[in-house]
Amino acid sequence: MLSFDYRHRVRYRECDPMGVVYHTHYLDYFEIARTEALRDLGLPYAELEEAGISMPVTDVSVQYRRSATYDDVLIIRSIFPETVPVARVKIEYVVFREDVQDDVIATGHVTLCFMDTARGRPTRAPRRLVEIIERELART
Amino acid sequence: MLSFDYRHRVRYRECDPMGVVYHTHYLDYFEIARTEALRDLGLPYAELEEAGISMPVTDVSVQYRRSATYDDVLIIRSIFPETVPVARVKIEYVVFREDVQDDVIATGHVTLCFMDTARGRPTRAPRRLVEIIERELART
Amino acid sequence: MLSFDYRHRVRYRECDPMGVVYHTHYLDYFEIARTEALRDLGLPYAELEEAGISMPVTDVSVQYRRSATYDDVLIIRSIFPETVPVARVKIEYVVFREDVQDDVIATGHVTLCFMDTARGRPTRAPRRLVEIIERELART
Amino acid sequence: MLSFDYRHRVRYRECDPMGVVYHTHYLDYFEIARTEALRDLGLPYAELEEAGISMPVTDVSVQYRRSATYDDVLIIRSIFPETVPVARVKIEYVVFREDVQDDVIATGHVTLCFMDTARGRPTRAPRRLVEIIERELART
Repeated sequence: MLSFDYRHRVRYRECDPMGVVYHTHYLDYFEIARTEALRDLGLPYAELEEAGISMPVTDVSVQYRRSATYDDVLIIRSIFPETVPVARVKIEYVVFREDVQDDVIATGHVTLCFMDTARGRPTRAPRRLVEIIERELART
Repeated sequence: MLSFDYRHRVRYRECDPMGVVYHTHYLDYFEIARTEALRDLGLPYAELEEAGISMPVTDVSVQYRRSATYDDVLIIRSIFPETVPVARVKIEYVVFREDVQDDVIATGHVTLCFMDTARGRPTRAPRRLVEIIERELART
Repeated sequence: MLSFDYRHRVRYRECDPMGVVYHTHYLDYFEIARTEALRDLGLPYAELEEAGISMPVTDVSVQYRRSATYDDVLIIRSIFPETVPVARVKIEYVVFREDVQDDVIATGHVTLCFMDTARGRPTRAPRRLVEIIERELART
Repeated sequence: MLSFDYRHRVRYRECDPMGVVYHTHYLDYFEIARTEALRDLGLPYAELEEAGISMPVTDVSVQYRRSATYDDVLIIRSIFPETVPVARVKIEYVVFREDVQDDVIATGHVTLCFMDTARGRPTRAPRRLVEIIERELART
């Protein structure tokens, strides 16, 4: 399984009057987690953009099981598919407290496609990303 | 069909470097749209809260079909289920430009449950909401 | 005095665990208020951008006097200077509840300059904006 | 000088159609920076809250000198006053790129007061914070 853990401490501005993380912020957590996963893989998103590729989000889902509260330390786990991406990539997420791994707070997914930024049209996964995923899948 | 339209003009802070609405903001749009739908129904969420009921979100999804850009006027349509809610309510959403109704920008759903705020436990849909939904369903 | 009132209902996501509007959101309120003020004046910001002019913010301040809570209806008043802008424009803000005008919730200011977007350099206030401000000042 | 550096990588969602950090996010950066500064001092804000003290913001300012762009690594420096706080504390901020310290991106300040949360009234700085600041000032 090709997965990456991102550690995030819950901020005051992310909590609502019920004292818990407001539900929309999990999508922000997912974004940071996959950005750092790509960086760990050796392919920062900023480099993809410079190469003329962008990755718009095509669909998302989140399932909320428990609440997180102010100052909690969360792990956002990004799980990449075990196949080489062609036109799109679907990343699964699991969120839990750093100190209580069994207690899942939320799960979800984000699907992104590849776009030729200049032409504004879909394109195939960039060669460099495909090679990295192949290398990582061979390793696991 | 029990549905409500909310009109929203896209704000600068909602747009990203690609010049389009960043994907997370659609969940904010959904929140505003259902808040105003409840108000139209005669049951503001603030009154529910005063009555000790809160409505946490249990799951969401969004499908992105087209982009919206700065200053676009969007309609966020909330579609309520045609059955009386018991333990939870699933609201469907469709987003389109005010002037181009055929061109769906995004679809999605948000499921909320009912919680007894003081006890922090699930509860049944409040009687008042049930009556309102029954009345509206009888009307359509 | 050249001023414009924008009406905003406080959203759930804008409130923090103390149950009040989190302090950063007042800058968002100011943005919406001045955007709609420019539209009222007949010069939408989107048109300025199309004409190659952008208006980056150079400095801001906010003074918080009272709290606003969920579902409050606020008036955000933008007050334009009584002189014709040359290189920058300083807008003053007052925020109060629609039903209690004497009770100021917050005050503040935002200064914006004019930038030639393509060249990335400061420029003078666009002729059209200058004419509009002159016309409005003559009227008051 | 009692100061703390917080490192933040600029997120995609923080950037606007001009490709730069939208001006409101600097207040979020300031919040994270002072939260982590308090933790470094040995007094997490969450503990203050548990002790019945909250610290509402009474006024802020930001001066914007240069732009920050996606994926930039910023240092947000919080500078505490060299006097022991009584009723309020004013924290100054300087933001610069990690690799170009001379190039100030933004400066600003945030003033917070101390509130007895249960009574909803101003109170004096908690003894523990005063002792910590005294200890740190003696050290420098």
